Amino acid sequence: MSNNTEKLYEDVCRYARRTAVLSSVNELLGWDERTQMPAAGAEHRAEQSTALAGLVHQRWVDPKYGDQLDELSGAMTVGEGSAESVTIRRLVRHRNKAVKLPRTLVEELARTAIFGQQAWQEARQKDDFPSFRPLLETMIDLKRQQAEALGYPQCPYDALLDEYEPEELTCNVAPVLEGLRDALVPLVAQIQQSPRRPDTSVLHREFPIDEQERFVREAATAIGFDFSRGRLDVTTHPFCCTLGPNDCRITTRYGETFFNAAFFGVLHEAGHGIYEQGLPIEHYGLPLGEAISLGVHESQSRLWENMVGRSRAFWNHVYPQAQRRFPAALSDVSIDDFYFAINDVRPSLIRVEADEVTYNLHILLRFELERALLDGDLQAADLPEDSYDKCHRYLGVTPPDNRSGVLQDVHWSAGLIGYFPTYSLGNLYAAQYFARAESELGNLVETFTQGDFLPLFTWLRENIHCHGQRYSASELVERVTGSPLSARPLVAHLQAKMGLLYEL
Amino acid sequence: MSNNTEKLYEDVCRYARRTAVLSSVNELLGWDERTQMPAAGAEHRAEQSTALAGLVHQRWVDPKYGDQLDELSGAMTVGEGSAESVTIRRLVRHRNKAVKLPRTLVEELARTAIFGQQAWQEARQKDDFPSFRPLLETMIDLKRQQAEALGYPQCPYDALLDEYEPEELTCNVAPVLEGLRDALVPLVAQIQQSPRRPDTSVLHREFPIDEQERFVREAATAIGFDFSRGRLDVTTHPFCCTLGPNDCRITTRYGETFFNAAFFGVLHEAGHGIYEQGLPIEHYGLPLGEAISLGVHESQSRLWENMVGRSRAFWNHVYPQAQRRFPAALSDVSIDDFYFAINDVRPSLIRVEADEVTYNLHILLRFELERALLDGDLQAADLPEDSYDKCHRYLGVTPPDNRSGVLQDVHWSAGLIGYFPTYSLGNLYAAQYFARAESELGNLVETFTQGDFLPLFTWLRENIHCHGQRYSASELVERVTGSPLSARPLVAHLQAKMGLLYEL
Repeated sequence: MSNNTEKLYEDVCRYARRTAVLSSVNELLGWDERTQMPAAGAEHRAEQSTALAGLVHQRWVDPKYGDQLDELSGAMTVGEGSAESVTIRRLVRHRNKAVKLPRTLVEELARTAIFGQQAWQEARQKDDFPSFRPLLETMIDLKRQQAEALGYPQCPYDALLDEYEPEELTCNVAPVLEGLRDALVPLVAQIQQSPRRPDTSVLHREFPIDEQERFVREAATAIGFDFSRGRLDVTTHPFCCTLGPNDCRITTRYGETFFNAAFFGVLHEAGHGIYEQGLPIEHYGLPLGEAISLGVHESQSRLWENMVGRSRAFWNHVYPQAQRRFPAALSDVSIDDFYFAINDVRPSLIRVEADEVTYNLHILLRFELERALLDGDLQAADLPEDSYDKCHRYLGVTPPDNRSGVLQDVHWSAGLIGYFPTYSLGNLYAAQYFARAESELGNLVETFTQGDFLPLFTWLRENIHCHGQRYSASELVERVTGSPLSARPLVAHLQAKMGLLYEL
Repeated sequence: MSNNTEKLYEDVCRYARRTAVLSSVNELLGWDERTQMPAAGAEHRAEQSTALAGLVHQRWVDPKYGDQLDELSGAMTVGEGSAESVTIRRLVRHRNKAVKLPRTLVEELARTAIFGQQAWQEARQKDDFPSFRPLLETMIDLKRQQAEALGYPQCPYDALLDEYEPEELTCNVAPVLEGLRDALVPLVAQIQQSPRRPDTSVLHREFPIDEQERFVREAATAIGFDFSRGRLDVTTHPFCCTLGPNDCRITTRYGETFFNAAFFGVLHEAGHGIYEQGLPIEHYGLPLGEAISLGVHESQSRLWENMVGRSRAFWNHVYPQAQRRFPAALSDVSIDDFYFAINDVRPSLIRVEADEVTYNLHILLRFELERALLDGDLQAADLPEDSYDKCHRYLGVTPPDNRSGVLQDVHWSAGLIGYFPTYSLGNLYAAQYFARAESELGNLVETFTQGDFLPLFTWLRENIHCHGQRYSASELVERVTGSPLSARPLVAHLQAKMGLLYEL
């Protein structure tokens, strides 16, 4: 780069980084709202968030910044894969999306999301889908407008998916997810027919909360979450958020008589946190210091929660500690029975409580429904019936009401259309990356049995976390595993594991 | 107002209010830093604060906003005392101060304050005043520059005092504080000669922290702090901060074997909080919704801490509860002995732990020293000696080293010159307001004895809190009590109370 271009590059990066720093303040506003704020502070908090988000948006669409970016794009003569060219390409992409959305649409989407969530909450309480329908229709219409404003390669859903899974295409994702569905539906049926059933009541004994708290902190520390650069707090809906490069906060909820809620919840959120803590600090606030996509993010949480946390090798090491920590609940439970219990597969109606296998079917039916809604192939009025139907076909269960059916999730009311598939992409990537790590490192079962999670942690750091947004999600999976997105590793993993447990 | 002026007024208020909302985000950044943030997050937190403070400052000095304010000032034809004219006058005042300070000076002050506090901390640890001296000299020089940039009616100290006590003058404050000193020095000497001495060891027994926590929450609630619009947390250095009109947070520290730390600390911070919670919400973010001055703020904390919390009538009601809560510590202690113990007067070296009488002497000597430093009548090099000398003359004790002498407080290292007198102004105003409330309400002793703090609370709401910045501190005290700032009520209160306790 010439001296001028170098100076311009530095200016642009400084500006973008400062904008990201301001934007990170909104993470604190959100974390505090959910963990600390007195309820009466909600109205003012919304004002603070709106004011700050407005300022951040203004900075992203600032014409001077745009001109600088354009000039830089033209002047960059360095190689395609250099840090500088990746940074500029991503910043340009981000800016172009920001300027494409008219301010009125952004505001209407935000307003509708607020009303939508209120309407959804009431409708769910009263099991009254018709009262929610008009808002859902408005939201779908706005999301169509958003897709048109942003533009898309092939179909409107591409534009929405891109918000969460940048550069991913519906035509790439859909067949893989359909393949997953076609493999899981018969697996679930097979499991249903197996005479073997775990005794899950052992997970519903007394697990004192203060003991759980110590136990989950130890587990999160063991897999690599760095508490000197983070926190763990309690919320109704667990989450992970990053306030800065050395301040990543996760939350969980404790059930006094349910072991899984906090334990697997913390492994999950710690997985997200470990990814955030592994992004390169020197690029903080710029694309090379940020997570690629929700799918890749979810792959990191699912990997630690399921591939590691629900593995037999993990419990070889951890179960004796669990028995010492919860003697009243677990001293008479064998490791085999415990391991089977935490891997119980059972079609149910609640997505967030679903097991490793059926979870994906919950996602797939939502993915199909929201695409049909957006394309106009499905009318909001017909949503309940269609969702009952799919639920029955994929899971073999039918919701008794809309509350446990189509009104189950907050997503659509909040405008989060295109978000659901990233949950299953996370599971797919997790299996792909784990299989690759296993074949490269060789002895993961052995290391887990010794309580040594550092080899896997280091492999993830070096193969995924360190890249930030250098590669898109689909580029990265090819680069690391040699294959594109695929359902095979996840299906193979589930068939093998459940085959053994259920003697299929 | 004409329609045009009205519209302009609304625009200006909306802009100022939005700026205040953004500025309130910095309160959360500070609160979180001191109560929740992992230590590793400090560097990024500083970046967040700086970026946000910069944005807020930019908004205050924005030329368009300035032009609108100027136009409005000229166009306002409504009466002098109207809400609108007060609002504009205060906004103009605030803006003029903001534009007068050159950006380079603001940045240098901020930088020097950070280095200054580091240098102070090290110097205090090593009891090494000479290592701190150069930074103190730089800071004093910068504060002189600040005073010159801001301008002042009579002396440079006026400009610095004005930052904390708007529109107050050194020539008004100094004689009152000197009068206070001249009355308190002999009172302390008299008390020293009294054969009566409380047994303060009863305050240093075992007070279990969880019981203290419940007890202080009850006390704060009883005097009127609204926990549905606030919180209480733990920090090393207690404080009160306001994140929004319905989100006021106070902190305290608990000493397992010292009753006073948390109890009187919480009454103090709750007093600040009650003031904040009493400011008119409809004017939030504008002058009529904000506190007048640090002195008036401190008057509200001192009033609840000392005039109420250290009164016999208060303990008539609260002491039986304290005995039930802390039976091991207090069951064999009479209310008389307890009341005497919490009113122990004893010259000491530590300002923050000083009693109701000697506290003011600590303040007065610092007020005299910082004025002399600013005026050049005292060189930083001579500070230790001068401070020993004053300490001996006013308090009868001499610090054994600089650590417990001139290096005791963080203020000067952080550039807080002009801040100290507001502590004593708070004590003076507290006594003036309390005396007035007593004479208007008549039966405060009786209501306190019944545990009824509502009459005093309501009186403060109606006479002080509801006005926001409608009046300056000195206007308000005249308006409410009929007298200007005066040492007489505080001196009378202390002479009467200590006269009884020490049989003077």
